[in-house]
Amino acid sequence: MTERIFNFYAGPAALPLEVLQEAQAELLNFDHTGMSIMEISHRSKAYEAINAEAEASLKELLGLSDDYRVLFLQGGASSQFFMVPMNFLPSGRTADYILTGSWSEKALKEAQAFGQTHVAATTSADNYRRIPSATEIHLSENPVYAHITSNNTIFGTQWQSFPKLTAPFVADMSSDILSRPFDASNFALIYAGAQKNLGPSGVTVVIIRKDWAESSPATIPTMLRYSTHSKNASLYNTPPSVAVYMINLVLRWLKKQGGLAAIAKKNQEKAALIYDAIDRSGGFYRGHADKDSRSLMNITFRLPSEELEQTFASQATQSDMIGLKGHRSVGGLRASVYNAMPLAGCQALAAFMREFQRTNG
Amino acid sequence: MTERIFNFYAGPAALPLEVLQEAQAELLNFDHTGMSIMEISHRSKAYEAINAEAEASLKELLGLSDDYRVLFLQGGASSQFFMVPMNFLPSGRTADYILTGSWSEKALKEAQAFGQTHVAATTSADNYRRIPSATEIHLSENPVYAHITSNNTIFGTQWQSFPKLTAPFVADMSSDILSRPFDASNFALIYAGAQKNLGPSGVTVVIIRKDWAESSPATIPTMLRYSTHSKNASLYNTPPSVAVYMINLVLRWLKKQGGLAAIAKKNQEKAALIYDAIDRSGGFYRGHADKDSRSLMNITFRLPSEELEQTFASQATQSDMIGLKGHRSVGGLRASVYNAMPLAGCQALAAFMREFQRTNG
Repeated sequence: MTERIFNFYAGPAALPLEVLQEAQAELLNFDHTGMSIMEISHRSKAYEAINAEAEASLKELLGLSDDYRVLFLQGGASSQFFMVPMNFLPSGRTADYILTGSWSEKALKEAQAFGQTHVAATTSADNYRRIPSATEIHLSENPVYAHITSNNTIFGTQWQSFPKLTAPFVADMSSDILSRPFDASNFALIYAGAQKNLGPSGVTVVIIRKDWAESSPATIPTMLRYSTHSKNASLYNTPPSVAVYMINLVLRWLKKQGGLAAIAKKNQEKAALIYDAIDRSGGFYRGHADKDSRSLMNITFRLPSEELEQTFASQATQSDMIGLKGHRSVGGLRASVYNAMPLAGCQALAAFMREFQRTNG
Repeated sequence: MTERIFNFYAGPAALPLEVLQEAQAELLNFDHTGMSIMEISHRSKAYEAINAEAEASLKELLGLSDDYRVLFLQGGASSQFFMVPMNFLPSGRTADYILTGSWSEKALKEAQAFGQTHVAATTSADNYRRIPSATEIHLSENPVYAHITSNNTIFGTQWQSFPKLTAPFVADMSSDILSRPFDASNFALIYAGAQKNLGPSGVTVVIIRKDWAESSPATIPTMLRYSTHSKNASLYNTPPSVAVYMINLVLRWLKKQGGLAAIAKKNQEKAALIYDAIDRSGGFYRGHADKDSRSLMNITFRLPSEELEQTFASQATQSDMIGLKGHRSVGGLRASVYNAMPLAGCQALAAFMREFQRTNG
């Protein structure tokens, strides 16, 4: 038997055990082809079937019509930071950004090279402890799009619901896509690095309205036009096959779990175990995020001292719970509990937190 | 036992069986971490060790000094087609391209958006059956670089040796990197999609002289500057971890094979089996490439009729040899026999060719 541990890394992150077992079982011989999935031509029927099934499953899970395409690209969300404005922010026009953390700041910075930008809301003065309220959002006059980050891995905040905006809506959903139901048809473009809720790193999912996908300027490099990838069903060039294959297995697993409503219920239950340990600690554990902005994916908290925080992280590792050290810009601890984190992992962490407090409190 | 077949795909292509077996064995628990390689944070010591070893091994195999960096990027060679001129071809300057096939044409096309280009040589009038001779190459006055494609998968040609040029030398070596010794220090930049000789698809290796890596303009998107990835040892953003891990295993395997000189000898022996079957067929099989331009990686040939070519490919598949259909722009058959293709695969194909000729000749 393989000895597996509980993986609280922010990403790359835990994958469903069943998915890994399936990938392992067929790693030398995918679907009776006599080849590994890593060896199969992307022009083969076997790979085209994976590519098509993954796109169809994503649209099915998100309830999207054929007005949308799902693309499997490379370069991570960091590449989407510039690809979105390169495709959709012409010089002289304005794009709006709502800042809720380091990733939205990076997205804004890349956009500034292409056209005008406008910060429609920011909670940076509150050290990004919270998501802005709807009344705090002030769009510019006629923005080409408004960009948000749905979940903030570093600060541990998450939009509880999405505002209704008059501008085309673009979202970086890298760290909470497919973790809960939402109205995806409200967005012109959604992007997500796979390595949190979708699969391994190395593939970026882009969900894009077809009219947007078709409007890329012909003056930018071929590989940077959404239209190139949309027209070719993500097969213009060699795709990151093994990562897309893993996404497809994860999507099958998610459908077996009951889809987004079912996984959201599990995610609430899981996160509640850890937030309860924080809230019932009498101040020993202090959450970074305001309660009404708390993320169900990344739970950030501090201890009474940095020394205790280090002890916590190292004792947790000894107890087979890894990846709990927080991001340097917030400090403290962070438990990332994406879709694939089993309930038992959150139970184990909550029990560890209570025991650690009993011993060190 | 897994039933494996002989995989002649042009890429993604065959990987060494030992490498796949090792990846399979530890897919649920990499190096006693209790996690899959697909789940491990790229900020962990375990992943950083893989990243560093893969860079060191590539430099060791290529005999490169610390004047060079090896980067693991995303987006394939198709993204390097524009990244190279975006970084190194300022408006008003000229970059030279030597055209030996469809991939060099695509590289040229992407460069045209950034500055002047000059075709220093082309064999397109000969349907790319051959590599130009040194005397056919005429550089422009002061090019920022001269670009070549070392091996042409579609046409089945390969530079037998590289010309000495006065300009900084850039090469797309996607389909023959690490297949033979060559003087890598002759190049300012070498790029290669991994999916032929290095690993699975989803990672692009860039070997770049440090002075070049440091000279990216600050005006282009952060992710598109070589300097960003060089400064951060390919860890500026989340890397395609599993693909880099596979490269690292393939490099270990290659070193165990004896390095580039040893693998070159094997590659010559393997390709000779198939070229012999062509040359001794009395014209039944006709090679596409001129003899002095033949590729040891991709062997392209025609049969007396398209009908026979189809029969050949389908009977070969029934005999567990897959991926032999040629590219549509050349037609006929193509046997891709990269480093990982075992000698037995080439022996089986050569025997099949003789038998097919006996039955259908």
